[in-house]
Amino acid sequence: MATQGQVITCKAAVAYEPNKPLVIEDVQVAPPQAGEVRIKILFTALCHTDAYTWSGKDPEGLFPCILGHEAAGIVESVGEGVTEVQPGDHVIPCYQAECRECKFCKSGKTNLCGKVRTATGAGVMMNDRKSRFSINGKPIYHFMGTSTFSQYTVVHDVSVAKIDPQAPLDKVCLLGCGVPTGLGAVWNTAKVEPGAIVAIFGLGTVGLAVAEGAKSAGASRIIGVDIDSKKFDVAKNFGVTEFVNPKDYDKPIQQVLVDLTDGGVDYSFECIGNVSVMRAALECCHKGWGTSVIIGVAASGQEISTRPFQLVTGRVWKGTAFGGFKSRSQVPWLVEKYMKKEIKIDEYITHNLTLGDINKAFDLMHEGGCLRCVLKMNE
Amino acid sequence: MATQGQVITCKAAVAYEPNKPLVIEDVQVAPPQAGEVRIKILFTALCHTDAYTWSGKDPEGLFPCILGHEAAGIVESVGEGVTEVQPGDHVIPCYQAECRECKFCKSGKTNLCGKVRTATGAGVMMNDRKSRFSINGKPIYHFMGTSTFSQYTVVHDVSVAKIDPQAPLDKVCLLGCGVPTGLGAVWNTAKVEPGAIVAIFGLGTVGLAVAEGAKSAGASRIIGVDIDSKKFDVAKNFGVTEFVNPKDYDKPIQQVLVDLTDGGVDYSFECIGNVSVMRAALECCHKGWGTSVIIGVAASGQEISTRPFQLVTGRVWKGTAFGGFKSRSQVPWLVEKYMKKEIKIDEYITHNLTLGDINKAFDLMHEGGCLRCVLKMNE
Repeated sequence: MATQGQVITCKAAVAYEPNKPLVIEDVQVAPPQAGEVRIKILFTALCHTDAYTWSGKDPEGLFPCILGHEAAGIVESVGEGVTEVQPGDHVIPCYQAECRECKFCKSGKTNLCGKVRTATGAGVMMNDRKSRFSINGKPIYHFMGTSTFSQYTVVHDVSVAKIDPQAPLDKVCLLGCGVPTGLGAVWNTAKVEPGAIVAIFGLGTVGLAVAEGAKSAGASRIIGVDIDSKKFDVAKNFGVTEFVNPKDYDKPIQQVLVDLTDGGVDYSFECIGNVSVMRAALECCHKGWGTSVIIGVAASGQEISTRPFQLVTGRVWKGTAFGGFKSRSQVPWLVEKYMKKEIKIDEYITHNLTLGDINKAFDLMHEGGCLRCVLKMNE
Repeated sequence: MATQGQVITCKAAVAYEPNKPLVIEDVQVAPPQAGEVRIKILFTALCHTDAYTWSGKDPEGLFPCILGHEAAGIVESVGEGVTEVQPGDHVIPCYQAECRECKFCKSGKTNLCGKVRTATGAGVMMNDRKSRFSINGKPIYHFMGTSTFSQYTVVHDVSVAKIDPQAPLDKVCLLGCGVPTGLGAVWNTAKVEPGAIVAIFGLGTVGLAVAEGAKSAGASRIIGVDIDSKKFDVAKNFGVTEFVNPKDYDKPIQQVLVDLTDGGVDYSFECIGNVSVMRAALECCHKGWGTSVIIGVAASGQEISTRPFQLVTGRVWKGTAFGGFKSRSQVPWLVEKYMKKEIKIDEYITHNLTLGDINKAFDLMHEGGCLRCVLKMNE
């Protein structure tokens, strides 16, 4: 390829400061170094974690940066020693790496991988602890090791999932974050079994993916909890069987759910990031075995709390990141499941815009009717 | 038997008010009604839960009552419909019932049983919601459905474990609470696997039983944490391989343990009942998979807290009651394990006294050198 080994200048949405509109800029993207992959991003979606860091509430947020972590594209070039992907491969960049060599990857107990975390957490690449993005020589930080709000990005090779080239990239880009997070929370973290009663707090994309996962696991009742009753119609299509709006009750929502279910739910999922809701999600679980899984990301410094009696009497409090999926190994499997129509993706996409409309896309995210907005990058 | 169907007058230690010395009284013990068993208690030990209720801090504590829940004895008589035990059977009364019929027992997911809980929680028997204990016609409340600080007690049949008549009752009485709680927390709740690194907070009887359970499960390192360094010598005999005294460090104890173990322990157990220690026990767990089990009973109204990030990054927070053992089914199995010398009991018994010395026994409990004090009842 003509661009291989060269700096590429392309369009990217740059976050210069918290809460200020992103600016579409010409950025310079350096070639991939050893163990790195440069990807032409074709489609990216927006996720609440992007908005969280953009808001300035993320204490690890670094500015200026290029946000974005739910995307799909095609490998443009690879650095030294990269063997598992090559130019032309269709890929999904994964914010959760999988090196297959570290203590975490080898444990067989977690999908978290430690290999590149110190670099991605600092907005740089591991090889030289520097960014591959710059504007007129001034570096722009990476974000979550993905930075997909750019027409080209550079990621670590342990963060690239190679997928079926037949898969539509404008759809499977969603497999970079929200949908796997919800499905995996059910399948990998909670391990919901047939007949179980499930409560889902928050019916955004992740919550709906939880519903979809619970339905496929054979849950007998899937109770959606949200303060926006308008979400129920859509939620039904994803498997939610009952809807509870906490605003309709004077009692605490955990008591409402305990009463509705003869003692509590078997599994609950917090998909909002609100620590009070996390407590309610635990406390609506059935004594003896109810398991609550935290998926939402709470604001920095906030804490969860409960009486220890809740745990001593058999409830279990867990959490999940990327639904417990091993990214490089399992994202391609999720793509296959989509191609076989075993999991939904299209139904989560409520809006399609272009990179230039990204600020409008962030506005949409805060409106009730938006699940995922997919941006086309090359227009 | 001559006493069958009759009221028995015998000695019992009565707690008239919180924190006031127990009084040895002649109490009248009514005959067992339908589904009840009257037991001649031969030996009882003291446990911290007795002291907790006695202290007045237990909001569910009722006075006057007869405390005690770790004991062994012989069935004196049985009420109507009782088929699984008969007079002369050697038994351990169990504060955790097992009816084998309720939602909990049938779930296959918990040892908690709901059948008699509303009665035992209210200090009465289920049949007529009254006490079988009285003094000159004035009722004395039951405690935990066991009330073993009496030479005779009446319990529900679902709370009686029939054991090998060869087993020494002055030893196996300990299988009524502390020792199974520690062993079961490891075997049933945490499911510690060979090679695991374990931390135990609090090296009393329960903590030492956790150590013994972890050793038998093949743990590679068993780290005892206690503010009393004198406990280490004894703890070694139960399997503790390393000792950490939080007073020796300026850093928070969770950080000390993370540093000592290259990232954290695989399993931690809180055996104290201190909510700050519960937090430390969770936060010293390894990212990705570390599991913390709360065993200690915290003071009423106190709450545990942590950052949700601790759970989202893979730690699991659980608790256990009676170590997850199904009481009637598994206490006899634990007695067999003791008879085959597969578990320790004798080593936990540091003092032997009589019922008349019960206030002295409570004093001993707060001294470092006391693990379990067993009271002989018929002297």
